[in-house]
Amino acid sequence: MPNPTAAILIIGDEILSGRTRDVNMHHLAGELTRIGIDLREARFVCDDRVAIVSAVRALSAAYDHVFTSGGIGPTHDDITADCIAEAFGRAIGIRDDARALLEAHFQRRGVEANEARMRMARIPDGAALIDNPISIAPGFSLENVHVMAGVPAIFEAMVASLLPTLTGGQPLLSQSYRIDRPESSVATPLKTLAEKYPELSMGSYPFQDNGAYGTNVVIRGQDGTQVEAALIELAGLFPADV
Amino acid sequence: MPNPTAAILIIGDEILSGRTRDVNMHHLAGELTRIGIDLREARFVCDDRVAIVSAVRALSAAYDHVFTSGGIGPTHDDITADCIAEAFGRAIGIRDDARALLEAHFQRRGVEANEARMRMARIPDGAALIDNPISIAPGFSLENVHVMAGVPAIFEAMVASLLPTLTGGQPLLSQSYRIDRPESSVATPLKTLAEKYPELSMGSYPFQDNGAYGTNVVIRGQDGTQVEAALIELAGLFPADV
Repeated sequence: MPNPTAAILIIGDEILSGRTRDVNMHHLAGELTRIGIDLREARFVCDDRVAIVSAVRALSAAYDHVFTSGGIGPTHDDITADCIAEAFGRAIGIRDDARALLEAHFQRRGVEANEARMRMARIPDGAALIDNPISIAPGFSLENVHVMAGVPAIFEAMVASLLPTLTGGQPLLSQSYRIDRPESSVATPLKTLAEKYPELSMGSYPFQDNGAYGTNVVIRGQDGTQVEAALIELAGLFPADV
Repeated sequence: MPNPTAAILIIGDEILSGRTRDVNMHHLAGELTRIGIDLREARFVCDDRVAIVSAVRALSAAYDHVFTSGGIGPTHDDITADCIAEAFGRAIGIRDDARALLEAHFQRRGVEANEARMRMARIPDGAALIDNPISIAPGFSLENVHVMAGVPAIFEAMVASLLPTLTGGQPLLSQSYRIDRPESSVATPLKTLAEKYPELSMGSYPFQDNGAYGTNVVIRGQDGTQVEAALIELAGLFPADV
């Protein structure tokens, strides 16, 4: 059985403006690979209602799981929860279980449960909450879309809460091999090798090191014996410089 | 006149598998902001023909410019040029000007112009070449899609060749202000301020610093006087701790 597929949707202007670097896509990509869910696509969109709603609909229809990051905080530009509700034609409002979590948290911290803070209890009808052990305001799953916060520490905590509840597949095994020759010298033998192992994926990633060109070849597959056999053949074709 | 809009399409498995971190999106985002082209969306897709062709068509129709990164090298998994040709219904083959560039380069380096290497001279009909001062194999622009290499040093060199040929808009000015209070305390006054300056965009980015919650507010706009005035009002609402 093929592995479940997934996409990630990162919501917010801060990465597209070049202000900050992505960390959430990179974190989730590694975690999904580990449990055998194939991340096939990632999208970054602005805090824009039309962009978010259409991306959620397209990705939800195309993949088994969609993970979102960002836009569920208390400020006016946090519109993700409303967009998810709109994408699936659901109502949204403050929900009792989310309200109770937040009120208890605010009481412990001695802060007022003001209107902005209670925005974080707005959850679309029919969604299941995702636990947030750090700042309490929950994420949620609706249909196959899992909605999480953008702050990296909170995103990672929500991912840790959520992933054990999903059914993974066979972890993708991966071996890489460094060849100190340019990609153009590797291409033809690698193509022949890839045709011999149709169940493996072989990627080649050129690099420059002190002005010299080299190629990292990555062999991926679910069958460890095949990955190992292909790696040995590759190493035979391109022995390491001694 | 509103600024031109853009999307970036990053092609290849290496980032989606969690193996490497993006650097090209981050670099281009900063460069585009500098010249007044608004990066509205980024997508990462696998080395998959259907995924690439459909993303190119969708992004090309939605934005003024599309920039792609990756998949134009000499190996069997480098299918971007063929996918771009397919997306626009163009023929593709080895083109004389690209062939001449590569043959001269290979001759200087004393390497054979083998079939794999000459794959890099395959250019869709009607495309304009993008100069590659580093490893010579050119990128190309077809319609509003600009196709560049994935190796960061080469991507950046191609971006440097290409951007001066594009018409930018007014650079987006940006000021940020750090508030040592959680986002939920900032939300209501910030919303009021954002309503007062409808031409500015105000984003709030929560952070944690030594366990304490804080908020970075970023004010963006094309009118420096307005950005400055809003920043002064914000600083008045949330004076820095002395």
